[in-house]
Amino acid sequence: MTVEPLNDEDRAEALDTLDEWDFDEARDAITRTFTFADFSEAFGFMARVALLAEKADHHPEWSNVWNRVDIALTTHDAGGLSHKDVALAEAIDALVG
Amino acid sequence: MTVEPLNDEDRAEALDTLDEWDFDEARDAITRTFTFADFSEAFGFMARVALLAEKADHHPEWSNVWNRVDIALTTHDAGGLSHKDVALAEAIDALVG
Repeated sequence: MTVEPLNDEDRAEALDTLDEWDFDEARDAITRTFTFADFSEAFGFMARVALLAEKADHHPEWSNVWNRVDIALTTHDAGGLSHKDVALAEAIDALVG
Repeated sequence: MTVEPLNDEDRAEALDTLDEWDFDEARDAITRTFTFADFSEAFGFMARVALLAEKADHHPEWSNVWNRVDIALTTHDAGGLSHKDVALAEAIDALVG
Protein backbone atom coordinates (compact mmCIF):
# COMPACT_ATOMS: atom_id res chain seq x y z
CA MET A 1 0.00 0.00 0.00
CA THR A 2 1.38 3.35 -1.01
CA VAL A 3 2.23 5.78 1.76
CA GLU A 4 1.21 9.35 1.06
CA PRO A 5 3.56 12.20 1.93
CA LEU A 6 2.28 14.66 4.55
CA ASN A 7 0.31 17.57 3.18
CA ASP A 8 1.45 21.08 4.06
CA GLU A 9 -0.84 21.43 7.05
CA ASP A 10 0.06 18.08 8.59
CA ARG A 11 3.74 18.70 7.95
CA ALA A 12 3.66 22.08 9.68
CA GLU A 13 1.85 20.54 12.64
CA ALA A 14 4.32 17.63 12.82
CA LEU A 15 7.37 19.90 12.70
CA ASP A 16 5.81 22.06 15.38
CA THR A 17 5.11 19.09 17.65
CA LEU A 18 8.48 17.36 17.17
CA ASP A 19 10.39 20.28 18.62
CA GLU A 20 13.55 18.25 19.32
CA TRP A 21 13.84 17.34 15.64
CA ASP A 22 15.28 19.44 12.84
CA PHE A 23 13.85 19.57 9.36
CA ASP A 24 16.24 18.76 6.52
CA GLU A 25 14.51 20.36 3.57
CA ALA A 26 16.88 18.97 0.93
CA ARG A 27 16.08 15.38 1.97
CA ASP A 28 12.54 16.09 3.17
CA ALA A 29 13.59 14.38 6.36
CA ILE A 30 13.56 15.03 10.08
CA THR A 31 16.82 14.60 11.96
CA ARG A 32 17.86 14.39 15.57
CA THR A 33 21.18 13.80 17.31
CA PHE A 34 21.29 11.83 20.56
CA THR A 35 24.31 11.86 22.86
CA PHE A 36 24.94 9.29 25.58
CA ALA A 37 27.51 8.55 28.27
CA ASP A 38 29.38 6.01 26.16
CA PHE A 39 29.13 3.48 23.33
CA SER A 40 27.34 0.91 25.46
CA GLU A 41 24.54 3.33 26.26
CA ALA A 42 24.39 4.58 22.67
CA PHE A 43 24.15 1.08 21.24
CA GLY A 44 21.57 0.08 23.82
CA PHE A 45 19.46 2.96 22.56
CA MET A 46 20.05 1.83 18.97
CA ALA A 47 18.87 -1.67 19.82
CA ARG A 48 15.65 -0.26 21.26
CA VAL A 49 15.13 1.93 18.19
CA ALA A 50 15.79 -1.09 15.94
CA LEU A 51 12.99 -2.99 17.70
CA LEU A 52 10.60 -0.05 17.29
CA ALA A 53 11.57 0.28 13.63
CA GLU A 54 11.15 -3.39 12.84
CA LYS A 55 7.79 -3.47 14.59
CA ALA A 56 6.64 -0.43 12.61
CA ASP A 57 8.21 -1.80 9.40
CA HIS A 58 9.75 1.63 9.00
CA HIS A 59 13.47 2.12 9.41
CA PRO A 60 15.77 5.04 10.14
CA GLU A 61 18.81 6.22 8.24
CA TRP A 62 21.29 6.53 11.04
CA SER A 63 24.90 6.67 12.03
CA ASN A 64 26.85 6.21 15.23
CA VAL A 65 30.21 7.40 16.42
CA TRP A 66 31.07 6.34 19.98
CA ASN A 67 28.43 7.96 22.22
CA ARG A 68 26.58 9.79 19.46
CA VAL A 69 23.67 8.62 17.32
CA ASP A 70 22.37 10.67 14.38
CA ILE A 71 18.95 9.70 13.09
CA ALA A 72 17.20 10.83 9.91
CA LEU A 73 13.65 9.82 9.15
CA THR A 74 11.99 10.03 5.77
CA THR A 75 9.78 7.73 3.73
CA HIS A 76 11.23 6.70 0.39
CA ASP A 77 7.95 5.14 -0.78
CA ALA A 78 6.21 8.46 -0.17
CA GLY A 79 8.98 10.56 -1.67
CA GLY A 80 9.38 12.44 1.62
CA LEU A 81 8.06 12.91 5.09
CA SER A 82 5.01 10.79 5.99
CA HIS A 83 2.97 9.93 9.06
CA LYS A 84 5.29 6.91 9.50
CA ASP A 85 8.19 9.25 10.25
CA VAL A 86 6.16 11.24 12.74
CA ALA A 87 5.04 8.07 14.53
CA LEU A 88 8.57 6.66 14.69
CA ALA A 89 10.01 9.99 15.89
CA GLU A 90 7.42 10.10 18.68
CA ALA A 91 8.22 6.52 19.68
CA ILE A 92 11.95 7.28 19.73
CA ASP A 93 11.37 10.41 21.81
CA ALA A 94 9.40 8.31 24.28
CA LEU A 95 12.49 6.09 24.78
CA VAL A 96 14.62 8.97 25.95
CA GLY A 97 11.87 10.49 28.03
CA MET B 1 48.33 4.34 26.82
CA THR B 2 48.88 6.06 23.53
CA VAL B 3 48.20 4.07 20.40
CA GLU B 4 50.76 4.55 17.64
CA PRO B 5 49.65 4.92 14.03
CA LEU B 6 50.84 2.22 11.65
CA ASN B 7 54.16 2.87 9.99
CA ASP B 8 54.31 2.78 6.19
CA GLU B 9 55.35 -0.83 5.98
CA ASP B 10 52.68 -2.12 8.38
CA ARG B 11 50.07 0.01 6.68
CA ALA B 12 50.92 -1.36 3.24
CA GLU B 13 50.77 -4.89 4.59
CA ALA B 14 47.45 -4.28 6.35
CA LEU B 15 45.83 -2.77 3.26
CA ASP B 16 47.11 -5.67 1.20
CA THR B 17 45.70 -8.23 3.65
CA LEU B 18 42.33 -6.55 4.16
CA ASP B 19 41.38 -6.86 0.51
CA GLU B 20 37.65 -6.35 1.10
CA TRP B 21 38.31 -2.97 2.67
CA ASP B 22 38.92 0.34 0.90
CA PHE B 23 41.38 2.92 2.07
CA ASP B 24 40.02 6.41 2.64
CA GLU B 25 43.15 8.51 2.44
CA ALA B 26 41.50 11.76 3.50
CA ARG B 27 40.34 10.22 6.79
CA ASP B 28 43.21 7.76 7.09
CA ALA B 29 40.51 5.15 7.58
CA ILE B 30 39.52 1.81 6.13
CA THR B 31 35.94 1.39 4.97
CA ARG B 32 33.72 -1.47 3.95
CA THR B 33 30.07 -1.76 2.96
CA PHE B 34 28.05 -4.80 3.99
CA THR B 35 24.71 -5.68 2.40
CA PHE B 36 22.19 -8.08 3.88
CA ALA B 37 18.81 -9.56 3.06
CA ASP B 38 16.89 -7.06 5.20
CA PHE B 39 17.05 -4.76 8.23
CA SER B 40 16.79 -7.59 10.71
CA GLU B 41 19.86 -9.29 9.30
CA ALA B 42 21.75 -5.99 9.03
CA PHE B 43 21.01 -5.03 12.63
CA GLY B 44 21.87 -8.52 13.84
CA PHE B 45 25.28 -8.03 12.25
CA MET B 46 25.57 -4.60 13.88
CA ALA B 47 24.83 -6.10 17.29
CA ARG B 48 27.64 -8.61 16.79
CA VAL B 49 30.03 -5.87 15.67
CA ALA B 50 29.02 -3.79 18.69
CA LEU B 51 30.00 -6.65 20.99
CA LEU B 52 33.37 -7.04 19.25
CA ALA B 53 33.95 -3.30 19.43
CA GLU B 54 33.07 -3.03 23.11
CA LYS B 55 35.28 -5.98 23.94
CA ALA B 56 38.18 -4.42 22.03
CA ASP B 57 37.40 -0.98 23.45
CA HIS B 58 37.65 0.28 19.89
CA HIS B 59 34.55 1.45 18.06
CA PRO B 60 33.55 1.95 14.44
CA GLU B 61 32.12 5.00 12.75
CA TRP B 62 29.18 3.48 10.97
CA SER B 63 25.85 4.05 9.35
CA ASN B 64 22.90 1.90 8.39
CA VAL B 65 20.13 2.27 5.86
CA TRP B 66 17.73 -0.68 5.74
CA ASN B 67 19.86 -3.70 4.65
CA ARG B 68 23.13 -1.80 4.25
CA VAL B 69 25.84 -1.12 6.82
CA ASP B 70 28.79 1.17 6.07
CA ILE B 71 31.73 0.88 8.44
CA ALA B 72 34.77 3.15 8.73
CA LEU B 73 37.63 2.31 11.06
CA THR B 74 40.29 4.74 12.21
CA THR B 75 41.93 5.51 15.55
CA HIS B 76 41.44 9.07 16.75
CA ASP B 77 43.97 8.66 19.57
CA ALA B 78 46.60 7.65 17.01
CA GLY B 79 45.64 10.30 14.48
CA GLY B 80 44.94 7.63 11.88
CA LEU B 81 45.01 3.95 11.12
CA SER B 82 46.41 1.73 13.89
CA HIS B 83 46.72 -1.96 14.69
CA LYS B 84 43.37 -1.64 16.52
CA ASP B 85 41.63 -0.97 13.21
CA VAL B 86 43.29 -3.91 11.54
CA ALA B 87 42.32 -6.23 14.41
CA LEU B 88 38.71 -5.04 14.43
CA ALA B 89 38.45 -5.30 10.63
CA GLU B 90 39.71 -8.88 10.78
CA ALA B 91 37.23 -9.72 13.55
CA ILE B 92 34.37 -8.20 11.53
CA ASP B 93 35.42 -10.09 8.42
CA ALA B 94 35.37 -13.29 10.45
CA LEU B 95 31.69 -12.65 11.29
CA VAL B 96 30.65 -12.63 7.65
CA GLY B 97 32.88 -15.56 6.72
